[in-house]
Amino acid sequence: MKLICSKANLLKGVNIVSKAVPTRTTMNILECILIDASTDEIKFTANDMELGIETKIEGEIVEHGIIALDAKIFSEIVRKLPDNEVTIETDNSFQTLITCEKAKFNIIGKSGEDFSYLPYVERMDSIIMSQFTLKEVIRQTIFSIADNDNNKLMTGELFEISENQLKVVSLDGHRISIRNINLKDYYKYKKVVVPGKTLNEISKILPGSADKEVVIYITDNHIIFEFDQTTVVSRLIEGEYFRIEQMLSSDYETKVRINKKELLDCIDRATLLIKEGEKKPIIMNVADGHMELKINSFIGSMNEDIDIDKEGKDILIGFNPKFFIDALRVIDEEEVTLYMVNPKAPCFIKDDEESYIYLILPVNFNAAVNG
Amino acid sequence: MKLICSKANLLKGVNIVSKAVPTRTTMNILECILIDASTDEIKFTANDMELGIETKIEGEIVEHGIIALDAKIFSEIVRKLPDNEVTIETDNSFQTLITCEKAKFNIIGKSGEDFSYLPYVERMDSIIMSQFTLKEVIRQTIFSIADNDNNKLMTGELFEISENQLKVVSLDGHRISIRNINLKDYYKYKKVVVPGKTLNEISKILPGSADKEVVIYITDNHIIFEFDQTTVVSRLIEGEYFRIEQMLSSDYETKVRINKKELLDCIDRATLLIKEGEKKPIIMNVADGHMELKINSFIGSMNEDIDIDKEGKDILIGFNPKFFIDALRVIDEEEVTLYMVNPKAPCFIKDDEESYIYLILPVNFNAAVNG
Repeated sequence: MKLICSKANLLKGVNIVSKAVPTRTTMNILECILIDASTDEIKFTANDMELGIETKIEGEIVEHGIIALDAKIFSEIVRKLPDNEVTIETDNSFQTLITCEKAKFNIIGKSGEDFSYLPYVERMDSIIMSQFTLKEVIRQTIFSIADNDNNKLMTGELFEISENQLKVVSLDGHRISIRNINLKDYYKYKKVVVPGKTLNEISKILPGSADKEVVIYITDNHIIFEFDQTTVVSRLIEGEYFRIEQMLSSDYETKVRINKKELLDCIDRATLLIKEGEKKPIIMNVADGHMELKINSFIGSMNEDIDIDKEGKDILIGFNPKFFIDALRVIDEEEVTLYMVNPKAPCFIKDDEESYIYLILPVNFNAAVNG
Repeated sequence: MKLICSKANLLKGVNIVSKAVPTRTTMNILECILIDASTDEIKFTANDMELGIETKIEGEIVEHGIIALDAKIFSEIVRKLPDNEVTIETDNSFQTLITCEKAKFNIIGKSGEDFSYLPYVERMDSIIMSQFTLKEVIRQTIFSIADNDNNKLMTGELFEISENQLKVVSLDGHRISIRNINLKDYYKYKKVVVPGKTLNEISKILPGSADKEVVIYITDNHIIFEFDQTTVVSRLIEGEYFRIEQMLSSDYETKVRINKKELLDCIDRATLLIKEGEKKPIIMNVADGHMELKINSFIGSMNEDIDIDKEGKDILIGFNPKFFIDALRVIDEEEVTLYMVNPKAPCFIKDDEESYIYLILPVNFNAAVNG
């Protein structure tokens, strides 16, 4: 094989597919990037068996061929090369010569035949949205997936498509994040659970342009995202997702309108009194016209008053401050509305159209005060 | 005690003195910042018994007093406060109330009386240089102090003042860095070894302006740096510094003029083939008009040609690439000159005026080729 590509194109390709290279594996070949120039295209592929990424890069094929190169070493070499044309040349014993200006690197590759190609997945019924929309919806929900594998379904996000609506849901047992998005077209009903890792990696490599599209294909076991020159194939998480409808009530006893930045900054300040691993709630004391926020820890105490618009009853309620911070950070509005029932029922942060709903369970308040 | 200061002033003061707060200590009081408003100035002090920093901050003293506050908690609180006036108020039981806008923090402080103030040091014979010069000379030499305590003198830098010259030297047994600086005035001869940690911290807090000065006082056991509103007092390292003159020969067999960036980039590229902890030399093969650089490791090999101007003999010599990278990074010239004698004698990188001299010992070359 012999290729000539610009350093910039190589680097772009390497950066994209590297996201699917496993950090630890017993199969050495999976730690490689496959360079496939056996046809008239140069394709880079990486695959950790759950998630596979393939991207086409521009360049000249002088001699067709395939080689698998250690992803870490190859990407470091590419990164440090001068900003110029790069030649990659391999021989029958997989010796690989990478040349750029006067620099010559010699490394040993592996046969491409041992590499696990992306699974073949039939592409039917495409769903289309802008890159921006997909990237945003991931950012706005990914923080509330569970960070351990105790319940596999909680490590993924529900993607539910009905008519021209996409609903994305994540939950970890203490909170639920929901985003509802209007699509341009109408689609057949589909409901799948996409691994959180897949969504995290996609949001890193997705340029996120509002003018460009992502085409999504869903089958029984896989989801495919196609954008620009890149294809991402991921396994789906099997099983029936949680029935969240029963948890979403629209009754409330207290409704609070509050400036988002003030609330976020205040909770953020309060958390500095909490040492890592310590569980101390932030207490909200909601009254007419203002809300007092308090936190008590071994380090000290903090309290602050924030002006609010209140409808309904006064309430004294405690929360894990991190859950509020996570949700408030991804809401773009200047003002948010909180809906509460009682100190043991979930609090909802949502807009009137329910384009977003963040449900946060309160923490036991008596224990908190005495803690 | 009751003070009113802007958040910005508090933060500036906290950031400066925090550099002298020890990370681990058995004396809790040393982990504090002392706020001293017992006179008409507000002074922040921190002191780890080797290095002490004091800085004055602007603000209003409503009630005189002294308090010691945990440095980590106090600096985090200050950092997260709104950008406005901050009130710090203490009572007789060291309860400290920090108020800014509607936010109120309550933390418990310590009596200032337990705090170790900076040692009293007599200020005689000041030495003056620009902040820029001091900051630069530290950056250009600090990398070659020893990183372990086996030889205490190697963990510091020699500051030698004679007439209107300051010579700064650091060495770690494999290399020597020397910078010679012209001062504006003439001074009495002085020779001290300043702890590397002190110099590192000073270079972090020194604004580095070319128009502003640092005033330095040296006594038998201490060195004092005064700049802007800040005073840094450090112990000196005791003992006789190494006699480096005998290692500095001006004889050479090979003289090489080379573009600094090309050489640096090339060595930098070569090092990516070396895994952490692996010792592989970079081999320089100096011939007429060009120099070949080679590296061989378990990962692969790399070689590159660089154009040079050569005087004298050809030479084949090997070096620890990191030592070359460290020295080349702090030389500002476009071209550098290397002086070499034989593959077992040190290589010198220096300019004609000897404003800088970097001496680097070569590594055993035969072992390297077979390694």
